[in-house]
Amino acid sequence: MSQNERYEAGVKKKFHLHMIAQRLGWSEHSREFRYAFRALTGDLALGLHHIFLKSLQSLGSEEQIAKWAPLCNEFRIIATYAQTELGHGTYLQGLETEATYDADTQEFVMHSPTLTATKWWPGDLGRSATHALVLAQLICSGARQGMHAFIVPIRSLQDHTLLPGVTAGDIGPKMDFEYTDNGFLQLDHVRIPRENMLSRFAQVLPDGTYIKLGTAQSNYLSMVVVRVSLLLDEINPLLEKACIIAIRYSVIRRQSRLRPSDPEAKVLDYQTQQHKLFPQLATAYAFHFMGTSLQEFFEESYSAILDRDFSLLPELHALSSGLKAMVSEFCTQGAELCRRACGGHGYSKLSGLPSLVSRVTASCTYEGENTVLYLQVARFLVKSYLQAQASPGSTSKTSLPQSVAYLTAPDLAKCPARRAADFLHPELYTRAWAHVAVRLIKDSAHHLQTRLQSGADEHEAWNQTTVIHLQAAKAHCYYITVKGFAEALQKLDHEPAIQQALQRLCDLFALHGILSTAGDFLQDGFLSGAQVDMVRSAYLDLLFLVNGCFRLHRSVFKFSTWLLRWKCL
Amino acid sequence: MSQNERYEAGVKKKFHLHMIAQRLGWSEHSREFRYAFRALTGDLALGLHHIFLKSLQSLGSEEQIAKWAPLCNEFRIIATYAQTELGHGTYLQGLETEATYDADTQEFVMHSPTLTATKWWPGDLGRSATHALVLAQLICSGARQGMHAFIVPIRSLQDHTLLPGVTAGDIGPKMDFEYTDNGFLQLDHVRIPRENMLSRFAQVLPDGTYIKLGTAQSNYLSMVVVRVSLLLDEINPLLEKACIIAIRYSVIRRQSRLRPSDPEAKVLDYQTQQHKLFPQLATAYAFHFMGTSLQEFFEESYSAILDRDFSLLPELHALSSGLKAMVSEFCTQGAELCRRACGGHGYSKLSGLPSLVSRVTASCTYEGENTVLYLQVARFLVKSYLQAQASPGSTSKTSLPQSVAYLTAPDLAKCPARRAADFLHPELYTRAWAHVAVRLIKDSAHHLQTRLQSGADEHEAWNQTTVIHLQAAKAHCYYITVKGFAEALQKLDHEPAIQQALQRLCDLFALHGILSTAGDFLQDGFLSGAQVDMVRSAYLDLLFLVNGCFRLHRSVFKFSTWLLRWKCL
Repeated sequence: MSQNERYEAGVKKKFHLHMIAQRLGWSEHSREFRYAFRALTGDLALGLHHIFLKSLQSLGSEEQIAKWAPLCNEFRIIATYAQTELGHGTYLQGLETEATYDADTQEFVMHSPTLTATKWWPGDLGRSATHALVLAQLICSGARQGMHAFIVPIRSLQDHTLLPGVTAGDIGPKMDFEYTDNGFLQLDHVRIPRENMLSRFAQVLPDGTYIKLGTAQSNYLSMVVVRVSLLLDEINPLLEKACIIAIRYSVIRRQSRLRPSDPEAKVLDYQTQQHKLFPQLATAYAFHFMGTSLQEFFEESYSAILDRDFSLLPELHALSSGLKAMVSEFCTQGAELCRRACGGHGYSKLSGLPSLVSRVTASCTYEGENTVLYLQVARFLVKSYLQAQASPGSTSKTSLPQSVAYLTAPDLAKCPARRAADFLHPELYTRAWAHVAVRLIKDSAHHLQTRLQSGADEHEAWNQTTVIHLQAAKAHCYYITVKGFAEALQKLDHEPAIQQALQRLCDLFALHGILSTAGDFLQDGFLSGAQVDMVRSAYLDLLFLVNGCFRLHRSVFKFSTWLLRWKCL
Repeated sequence: MSQNERYEAGVKKKFHLHMIAQRLGWSEHSREFRYAFRALTGDLALGLHHIFLKSLQSLGSEEQIAKWAPLCNEFRIIATYAQTELGHGTYLQGLETEATYDADTQEFVMHSPTLTATKWWPGDLGRSATHALVLAQLICSGARQGMHAFIVPIRSLQDHTLLPGVTAGDIGPKMDFEYTDNGFLQLDHVRIPRENMLSRFAQVLPDGTYIKLGTAQSNYLSMVVVRVSLLLDEINPLLEKACIIAIRYSVIRRQSRLRPSDPEAKVLDYQTQQHKLFPQLATAYAFHFMGTSLQEFFEESYSAILDRDFSLLPELHALSSGLKAMVSEFCTQGAELCRRACGGHGYSKLSGLPSLVSRVTASCTYEGENTVLYLQVARFLVKSYLQAQASPGSTSKTSLPQSVAYLTAPDLAKCPARRAADFLHPELYTRAWAHVAVRLIKDSAHHLQTRLQSGADEHEAWNQTTVIHLQAAKAHCYYITVKGFAEALQKLDHEPAIQQALQRLCDLFALHGILSTAGDFLQDGFLSGAQVDMVRSAYLDLLFLVNGCFRLHRSVFKFSTWLLRWKCL
């Protein structure tokens, strides 16, 4: 299909699904709807419509939600979210689009003052959207108040032509997402009513008085909302699908002989193939449980934030940033590994794998570039560490956010494992991960302070230590994920068979991570060289055992049906 | 452009280049031709024509070369190389296509006995080729003689229709290579004359007597030839181009502020951006020098092999396999890193980066799947190691192939470095890499022997230790590359400025590799934790210095022109 045909098919499927859901009474959160959505994902247009809705619900007042949500839900308007500009993605303070309040007419004048202010990338903008949520610098009574969100009609509801002052179109060919019309938008003094500024956290009164009801970060809330929902709705499913395709293929495909006298072997029986695929399968499950628990924490804190209690926002921001970066990084790497594990057939689009890879790799960039996100986690970690240092003792422990409370937990200097089997205890490897994360966080904070003490200013000192901070942030995220996986499995003791199968994957995830960054565990002598050998030996045995699972159940089809009961695949 | 339009454009460009070369008298090895080829690569059809020619020159008799080479060179025929089948890629012994000799008519009967025997993937086969070099199992006088190469006419030279008994076509959409018609081929008892079997290393006499003139591996020689030429002609240039695009972008693109009072900074001034890009630039240079030295070794050994002296073939096979696997793995990873380092713009096809990535990733699979190739190196390493063990002393040293002679060189138990600057000595880090490679090779051989001693048969023992062998093979390849880079720079002392700039990249390549696999250096205490910190510190300083180079010369354009004198970019 050409790009145009894929776009048209994407729009048709979107409305077809919508009509089926209406007819059968599926709510958007029902299992049926989610299943259908997941099966079709990669082929549905108008995804940004939902991002608009989520942003409206996060940033809009109750009146604004009451007005715009029904228009959206009934598709009487098609909406998009226009934040990124040609000149600025990461650096939101640098966004150039202006919203200047005109008290005479009680309107905002929306304007793109430069070429680089052109909104660039928003999905559904190229030719679909009738309305855009435009993120712009608010200027009122002559003062710049930072980024705020404005609903801007851009296309006629009568004939879909662009409205006066609006220039918009498609941005051209991309690696994937052909079914959606990523677009650009320039605004030339477009006027919108005062009521179109989303005003849960900030208001402009008719006379131009600016009233702040939230923090400076409030308007970033919709990005947090989107980031959290992406993990389970979009990013991890792409790895899950890649695992299923590659593992099923590896059970069917035979190539070469293990012994000259044998028939050709299933490629899954080769240790190197298991080494490629099983850690990816384990990762997909790890992220499933981690995403679920992040979702729970999000729901806990979200309603408080909507009520303008921002105390949990920094932790929610740090957690969702770090986990989004980690999930997108590992899912991209994993999906590509799955694709390559299918040899030449993985390069053919007919395998379904190329589109999973070219789609998931975008997630390393969109909704916060990964390096930038990891460094935001790192700032939170350094701050938490310094806070713990400043007030040692029991009080500091309670005041640290939950996800970094382990910074003050008792630590072991050396891992007590004596044989390979010891590494199959979740408590042991979770503590090992905690140890390494704490050490790297300390290390990064100390490097930062050394630079400061030797005369660098704080910005220079930060920039000169970012590679070290990255390493700490990644170890922290891995620790959080290992811990979450292990805890989730403890709750499964009424399903011992499932618990046992998943326990192996949890062990595999933790040990594969240790082997991949063995230097971090060896550097301070926490693990000895002999212990790393034990980890490797335990890991190789796990590969064999997991493969045995697939053999036992004869085919991966049965195995996955069996695990499907946990809605994991 | 549609796939069809890209194919037509690819054919036109191919002939346009050919005609220009003829008019201007460029030979295929001239600098002008290579430059034009490199600039156009990614858009030239009929690449397999040259693979056919190289195979003909490797496997054909002088008479066969005299007959077919001119037809090829003048494009009076269009040829392809048909080896991979739907059912077999890696496992060449499993190829099912048969060539049965019929002494009555002095013909071979070429036949695809099953669906999985269908030739699958050959470029230019779908609709271009008139002739295919078909790799098939030779059967003569009732005996199977293994894989041999046969020239099979498949399309009419009059009207380009498929010849009787031939079924062929396009295999459908792929991740990239739209400009080439990868195809499939089925042969139904197609008869070709006896003279069409390439007969440098094996002949079938008119009466059906089979005469072997080479080893069992002789017919794999053309794969070695192709693998060697790919490194510098196809794979590394894709990383080089990605580096140039991403680094130029990072000099121009400004995003965010290092200090609140400063203007927005060039993204290349961020340490994390340097950490993404400079190791890739260093890798591209490392592979340039390594590819050049492999080419020299190849030329040394190739003429001996053509004269049926096969003594250097095992080493040439191991070296070219390992280095192809390493180059394709690192170039793929590096090009994707470069792409992501350009943020959203790297996802747009307009940046040129997506096609570089989707093209280079194919090289991990074609011409030998990387894992399979690394394991072939590993077999060579284990064998060499056991050989060195069996006959210790000075005699063994001389008898070991040159690339593994370091297995018996004197080794240090601990790295003597005392401060970060010590790690900037090529001799020091080359020895560090040698130490780790030797240790891992020993380790893998010992694990294999332990399995054998505990009762596993050799095939089972091998399969159960392949993950360990992979690690050893990778370290060996890295060592070879570091050593080659350092040696090449020693020869540049008449160009001190260039030597100094490249020396930093050589240091960067070596130290980045140590940091990425620090566990391997720490495990036996060769490096201490404090020394790994020194390596990191030296590495971060190098990033700063390399960035200084780009600043000094104001723009990367000048820098690359400057380095272009060494024909590296």
